[in-house]
Amino acid sequence: MNIGIIGLGLIGGTIAKSLNKNHHINAYDINKETINYAIKNKIIHKGYNNLEEFLKDNSLIYLCLYPLDIVHFIEKYSSKINKNSLIIEISGIKTNLVNEIEKIKNKNYDIIFTHPIAGSEKIGIRYADENIFKDANYIITPIKTNIETNIKLAKRLAKEMNFKNISFLTKEEHDKIIAYTSQLTHILSLSLVNSIDTNLKLVNYIGDSYKDLTRIAEINTKLWPQLFIDNKENLIEKITKFQVELTEFKNALKNEDDVALTKLMEKSKSIHNKAMEETDNES
Amino acid sequence: MNIGIIGLGLIGGTIAKSLNKNHHINAYDINKETINYAIKNKIIHKGYNNLEEFLKDNSLIYLCLYPLDIVHFIEKYSSKINKNSLIIEISGIKTNLVNEIEKIKNKNYDIIFTHPIAGSEKIGIRYADENIFKDANYIITPIKTNIETNIKLAKRLAKEMNFKNISFLTKEEHDKIIAYTSQLTHILSLSLVNSIDTNLKLVNYIGDSYKDLTRIAEINTKLWPQLFIDNKENLIEKITKFQVELTEFKNALKNEDDVALTKLMEKSKSIHNKAMEETDNES
Repeated sequence: MNIGIIGLGLIGGTIAKSLNKNHHINAYDINKETINYAIKNKIIHKGYNNLEEFLKDNSLIYLCLYPLDIVHFIEKYSSKINKNSLIIEISGIKTNLVNEIEKIKNKNYDIIFTHPIAGSEKIGIRYADENIFKDANYIITPIKTNIETNIKLAKRLAKEMNFKNISFLTKEEHDKIIAYTSQLTHILSLSLVNSIDTNLKLVNYIGDSYKDLTRIAEINTKLWPQLFIDNKENLIEKITKFQVELTEFKNALKNEDDVALTKLMEKSKSIHNKAMEETDNES
Repeated sequence: MNIGIIGLGLIGGTIAKSLNKNHHINAYDINKETINYAIKNKIIHKGYNNLEEFLKDNSLIYLCLYPLDIVHFIEKYSSKINKNSLIIEISGIKTNLVNEIEKIKNKNYDIIFTHPIAGSEKIGIRYADENIFKDANYIITPIKTNIETNIKLAKRLAKEMNFKNISFLTKEEHDKIIAYTSQLTHILSLSLVNSIDTNLKLVNYIGDSYKDLTRIAEINTKLWPQLFIDNKENLIEKITKFQVELTEFKNALKNEDDVALTKLMEKSKSIHNKAMEETDNES
């Protein structure tokens, strides 16, 4: 197949690397150096510096832009997209984006909203790596106008990219759960790092727990404020719920209540075991 | 050398596995099955079910018990420890323990307080694994009466076990920094898990960030309440400081202040980069 990619960042680049053995990959990026790098390293087959030209040649397109840029792209280029094209979008938030795009898109093409739950603390095509998709989760949030065969194709390509569980959620469900599993975790990691108050050489006094909890503090500062603000209501709700649970621990500790501490830990173990349980009813 | 181990749990078992190629390992455990398992799997050379007998035969001893049990052990068995013995203790808190032990120990033997910063979410000798010590950190909190050659020996053995950075801290410094790097991280992980509020099959919607932040929620519920309560003052201080930082994020989010969010992220990245920087001035 001919597969087009708009935006060769970490995710766009990883999609290219994951599909370039079996498909012909065309890509557009605003940055000429990125295109040159991708050609030179055989990540893509053909590069474009002109978006209109790219749109003429491609009818199956992964749109790998930041949420605000997706809206700008659809506003500006909707009329240039080939009739019956399929656009697959890959950003980390959905409700507002879907609502916005549904308002401005025309009916000539289909757009499927998806979220490959994979990433890296590194930015850019130089860090693109097929392994980050391996056994990862992929969420599709269908809209009413999506064509069934297109959804099947998006799913099949996600499988080809080695995603393990491909699930369907409404846009609202997606944003609620991502506020918890991804956005809250990043805010906790950042707040943990920011609460440091030692001048000791930390690297000598840490174990895996600190490493694990702070790896994601190396965050893409251009992307994440957009994601957080866009999902503000859900995220504030999750932070508040977390604060309640943290206060439970603090109070048990203040009271030196080892029974309460043990109960809180038992609760956590039981929830975690259940939540992480793999079953075979994947779609 | 003849090396004795009291308590063949995850850490005692791992010490045995790390040293049993070059030394003769004797071990005592309250549980006969544990001793049988350790003998059968060639983790130790000789097992004891009688502690007094063990103490007669061993003068270099790793004391791998929970903090409260260490105090009980010293109270009850101080007079049975061979003259000029060296006891190396390995628990995760220091100030109260050191103070307590200094009160009750006699002068016939030396005791060195150390903290191998390594562990696992699993409990018991079956999960003992030399790899958890590889390139990990080791802290020694010397006391005034420690004999210099004994400290050198404890350090040399830690190197033999493949620890990378062996650092010296006062007991108070140790407890302050561990409250942040280890205890706070565990409480954040537990609180994150406890704040779940979905019935969706979580495992299908998570990425590495959630996995990383919740791995340590599988906690040893017998050990950690002791560690937390023992270090209560420091830990409450760290939780409070974390809460302040978390509130900064929440407020920036409420105000949809992307500049403030970006600044908080930049702050975190800069602290994290500096804190994790490896240098070569290890002791």
